[in-house]
Amino acid sequence: MKMEDFGPVKEAPNNIFWHKGRISRHERECILGQKGIVLWFTGLSGSGKSTLANAVAEKLNAQGKLTYTLDGDNLRHGLNKDLGFTVAERMENIRRTGEVSRLLVDAGLIVLAAFISPLREDRAQLRQMLGRDYIEVYVDCDLAICEARDPKNLYRKARAGEIEEFTGISSPYEKPENPELIVHTDQESFEECVGKIISYLERYFEQG
Amino acid sequence: MKMEDFGPVKEAPNNIFWHKGRISRHERECILGQKGIVLWFTGLSGSGKSTLANAVAEKLNAQGKLTYTLDGDNLRHGLNKDLGFTVAERMENIRRTGEVSRLLVDAGLIVLAAFISPLREDRAQLRQMLGRDYIEVYVDCDLAICEARDPKNLYRKARAGEIEEFTGISSPYEKPENPELIVHTDQESFEECVGKIISYLERYFEQG
Repeated sequence: MKMEDFGPVKEAPNNIFWHKGRISRHERECILGQKGIVLWFTGLSGSGKSTLANAVAEKLNAQGKLTYTLDGDNLRHGLNKDLGFTVAERMENIRRTGEVSRLLVDAGLIVLAAFISPLREDRAQLRQMLGRDYIEVYVDCDLAICEARDPKNLYRKARAGEIEEFTGISSPYEKPENPELIVHTDQESFEECVGKIISYLERYFEQG
Repeated sequence: MKMEDFGPVKEAPNNIFWHKGRISRHERECILGQKGIVLWFTGLSGSGKSTLANAVAEKLNAQGKLTYTLDGDNLRHGLNKDLGFTVAERMENIRRTGEVSRLLVDAGLIVLAAFISPLREDRAQLRQMLGRDYIEVYVDCDLAICEARDPKNLYRKARAGEIEEFTGISSPYEKPENPELIVHTDQESFEECVGKIISYLERYFEQG
């Protein structure tokens, strides 16, 4: 192998170099026939984030689109399994998930990320990290309804003091101020919510 | 939204649940017309790992296959930017990269990961994490040749004592014992090395 075979490298601090990949995101998107994007579902536990994300993924899959669903709980089994639930660890959990989303969207995928992500600061960081690829979907649902649903039995445990700092009960959920999309799972039907998201995506992709 | 709309959840320790994604890896692989796999390139700095990974990606891309190249340096600009170069941080760097590879391969992609990854223990962890999806490519090249190439000027700095614990100079590279594939970039031509990897992949995909 000759020296010239080595690709161009750009020097950076700490002797870390950036190798320009030979395949661009655009080339990958052409192979896929789609555009990469991140739909970030934020909302209370029990608001329906993961359920909606999975339903949207199913619709897109039926159209031959490549999606990937990221879920707070799932990532905590792998990439983020070293992280607990302190404020700093929750922030790191969101940061890493944002970075993984950035890789997946660069790979050309439609990423569906379902995370409570209660803090404006964290979501602002995601928006900065992902830029135009970040579409915030606020899954709005009244706390009383989420608590009545309680699909994971977590509200009951939080009320019993078995879970500390549970969003909506003992730690705040800061409502999004300018989400790209809002769905009201306590007022609209499941089909209406999914349809709204799919329509948004179709318009987004048409705009190019 | 009704309670029944919520997907099945499986309770786990620490109130973390595993949401079964509605789209399987197999469904994604069908959309892509390929199988997910990780080619993990290990070898000394300057051995040609990233260059080979990029060349293989280019060949596969020309065949309409979806690839993604992960590179030690690149990830340190994003996901792993909080990590330094202590033994523990290097291990965490590899662990996170393995977890990201696992997500990408689950998404159906052909992952090309180029990392010095000098320790057998780290590579054993990757093999355990990725199972059958892990294909170790040992990019074998004599240290003297790597040092003569020195494309990033790192060996010179390491010899001058400006970089501590530099693999091959002041910290060990533990040769792979049972890699799936070996290429000798100090003996074979660049084209031969790339061809060997592509042939391996073709056989692998044919076997199903």
